[in-house]
Amino acid sequence: MTQLYNAKRKNCTKEMKHIATLEKIPESRLMKNIADGHTVIVKSQRHSCIPVGIGKNLRIKINANIGTSNFCNQISLELEKLDAVVKYGADTVMDLSTGGDIRKIRKTIIESSTIPVGTVPLYDAITQNPDVASITEKNFLDAIKMHIDDGVDFITVHCGIKRDHIPYLDSRIMGVVSRGGSFLVKWMLYHNRENPLYTHYDEIVEMAKEQDVVLSLGDSLRPGCIADATDAAQIAELKILGKLARRAYRQDVQVMIEGPGHVPLHHIVKNIKLQKKYCHGAPFYVLGPLVTDVSPGYDHLSGAIGGAIAAWHGADFLCYLTPKEHLGLPGLDDVIDGVIASKIAAHAADIARRIPGAEKADILMAKARSNLDWETMYATALNPEKARRMRLETLQDGKEVCSMCGDFCSAKINLESRGKYRSMI
Amino acid sequence: MTQLYNAKRKNCTKEMKHIATLEKIPESRLMKNIADGHTVIVKSQRHSCIPVGIGKNLRIKINANIGTSNFCNQISLELEKLDAVVKYGADTVMDLSTGGDIRKIRKTIIESSTIPVGTVPLYDAITQNPDVASITEKNFLDAIKMHIDDGVDFITVHCGIKRDHIPYLDSRIMGVVSRGGSFLVKWMLYHNRENPLYTHYDEIVEMAKEQDVVLSLGDSLRPGCIADATDAAQIAELKILGKLARRAYRQDVQVMIEGPGHVPLHHIVKNIKLQKKYCHGAPFYVLGPLVTDVSPGYDHLSGAIGGAIAAWHGADFLCYLTPKEHLGLPGLDDVIDGVIASKIAAHAADIARRIPGAEKADILMAKARSNLDWETMYATALNPEKARRMRLETLQDGKEVCSMCGDFCSAKINLESRGKYRSMI
Repeated sequence: MTQLYNAKRKNCTKEMKHIATLEKIPESRLMKNIADGHTVIVKSQRHSCIPVGIGKNLRIKINANIGTSNFCNQISLELEKLDAVVKYGADTVMDLSTGGDIRKIRKTIIESSTIPVGTVPLYDAITQNPDVASITEKNFLDAIKMHIDDGVDFITVHCGIKRDHIPYLDSRIMGVVSRGGSFLVKWMLYHNRENPLYTHYDEIVEMAKEQDVVLSLGDSLRPGCIADATDAAQIAELKILGKLARRAYRQDVQVMIEGPGHVPLHHIVKNIKLQKKYCHGAPFYVLGPLVTDVSPGYDHLSGAIGGAIAAWHGADFLCYLTPKEHLGLPGLDDVIDGVIASKIAAHAADIARRIPGAEKADILMAKARSNLDWETMYATALNPEKARRMRLETLQDGKEVCSMCGDFCSAKINLESRGKYRSMI
Repeated sequence: MTQLYNAKRKNCTKEMKHIATLEKIPESRLMKNIADGHTVIVKSQRHSCIPVGIGKNLRIKINANIGTSNFCNQISLELEKLDAVVKYGADTVMDLSTGGDIRKIRKTIIESSTIPVGTVPLYDAITQNPDVASITEKNFLDAIKMHIDDGVDFITVHCGIKRDHIPYLDSRIMGVVSRGGSFLVKWMLYHNRENPLYTHYDEIVEMAKEQDVVLSLGDSLRPGCIADATDAAQIAELKILGKLARRAYRQDVQVMIEGPGHVPLHHIVKNIKLQKKYCHGAPFYVLGPLVTDVSPGYDHLSGAIGGAIAAWHGADFLCYLTPKEHLGLPGLDDVIDGVIASKIAAHAADIARRIPGAEKADILMAKARSNLDWETMYATALNPEKARRMRLETLQDGKEVCSMCGDFCSAKINLESRGKYRSMI
């Protein structure tokens, strides 16, 4: 029995109770949001992890991608990344491995992770059988089954891209930038058949239902550059995703919708509105979005700009980008910087959305700053180790001020008069 | 004769011609914007540098702060920072030195800089005479005169803070976070007198007029934490700044207005609207704004989120923040990361504002990506060296793909079908 099944029948599960308490939202409202398909609870019945709520009235969540490629595949490094993303506050993690013994890596990550784990089963099918000629519809479905059996909590499935959409690609600069999507297009063209994840969608829904795995409906046609944003290809697929979301919903299977990608600032709000409209308010899971294409090395920052605006205006779930996006597989430091960048975007949006208690840490930091209380400043920082290291780079410990203003520190001057300005004037 | 004097009389100066050509704006429109006080041209008659236009219908400009403190004062490092900020695209630079032989540092920076240089003369007065009891009104004015004589192109002058505003500080968490502002409050309280930069404002205007130095009216009462944003203190000072802007305008002296600081996402647009209203459309020069207080080590990123939104909605000039903000004096790498962060914010806003040609580099990058043309990708990146270094960290040169997707590169798959999708279906 899925969370959606229970919510529709007003059965408050222990996961709902946990999330209602944690997020300070009445159980009845949370249950209604789930029943309406506006919120999902991510947690497979096969995985003992913290259940995470994503959607309406909830704190914005962030996802960190880890995983190997055929150029870098050390499982120990992936476990270090996992520890780091949990430590710095990712709500979920996706294992996108395409190199090495990927089933072993996946199982190890699931076993080690206290937060929900997502995957893209298609990568498994392709890496095991990269030859477009010989890979079969059954291979795709078997990979999904295997991932669900392995205990993943949510899966990206590229069910919305159809043969009809392919001609739209000719007017794009970047074509299909989704790894899974580009392979599916190649498959459809080679075999002259419809996307098997579309034609077998009901079977996929059935499989997800068994363990209450959340379907994250992938946007194969997300724009890969700002010039391609919000184009006919993207919107055509989005409409299909909305229809598929309803079909899953009727089967009590939880769904979220994946979104772009590369989107200029002035398109972001429009993108959110279109998603909410076509997809009936289903949670929106966006990748960035990046507000420019020219920031390799800083794409976590470009994505945080787009992510903050998107989340403020209704996106529910932000997939991080690391500084290595478009350049290579992220290392440990990249992963940490990616998580923090997304945390900043999500947190800024939570403040703007007036989520109760969202400003608490900011007030603590402001008070610590006005008291020149460095230990509390470090402890309240999103990355305490980096904050401490950066301060000590230019100043020995034990000093009251920092090396920026030195003795001309405004906080130090304020301390002389604080709280008694009115009486002094 | 200042640029404003000439614009009011429809005399198109060579600086106006240069900017009109560079920014692809008709000379008549640029001249009208200057005549209306909505655009300034930053360049002292004493400094041979590139004139920079800031304001209406123009590309968003960014400023980088450099300068020493009493903990770090090597002039050679400041010159390295100057070279770096020019290289990575800062439009102006401010020398905020408070340590070492600051006049020598300032003169060396002005002499070396091809872009306009701004300063805060008050710092000079305070560092030479840090004793509040003995520093005189004349000391403050003499410092301004000296900076103008030295050839600075724009100066921050804290003319808007008045004794009346001081009682508002009791309801703040962070009090006054402006270095100059906090010293002026201390001075006003000690001497029981009005702010001398307010009472002697007409003399300051006269001094600026002589070399056509742009007055950047400082916001001593900018919020230093998001809880203090848009409060009574900030708005009271902003209204005075608007009145002072008009007074300078009548004397043909160019003015811009400085703004916050720490501002939550949902206050940013309101802040821009208030500034444009109270300050008669004068160019708005904002510091960040930071959208959260808890990001030390990443404040360039938090500031880029706020800066992108501010610039999109009408701010004209972004002051960068570095990762070291709130922690210490920035080093060379921090300065570079700060410039790039602000460039991303400004560029994203220019795209959203439909500035002609703003997307050109993005289209070049997108085409290079779809062709797997790595050299063009590096060359088009905001930080080419970092992009190249990051890619090569995980992959030897000469490879077609990157270490993220390896052989499962979507761009590589796209190349097989690009431009002929319609015919293949």
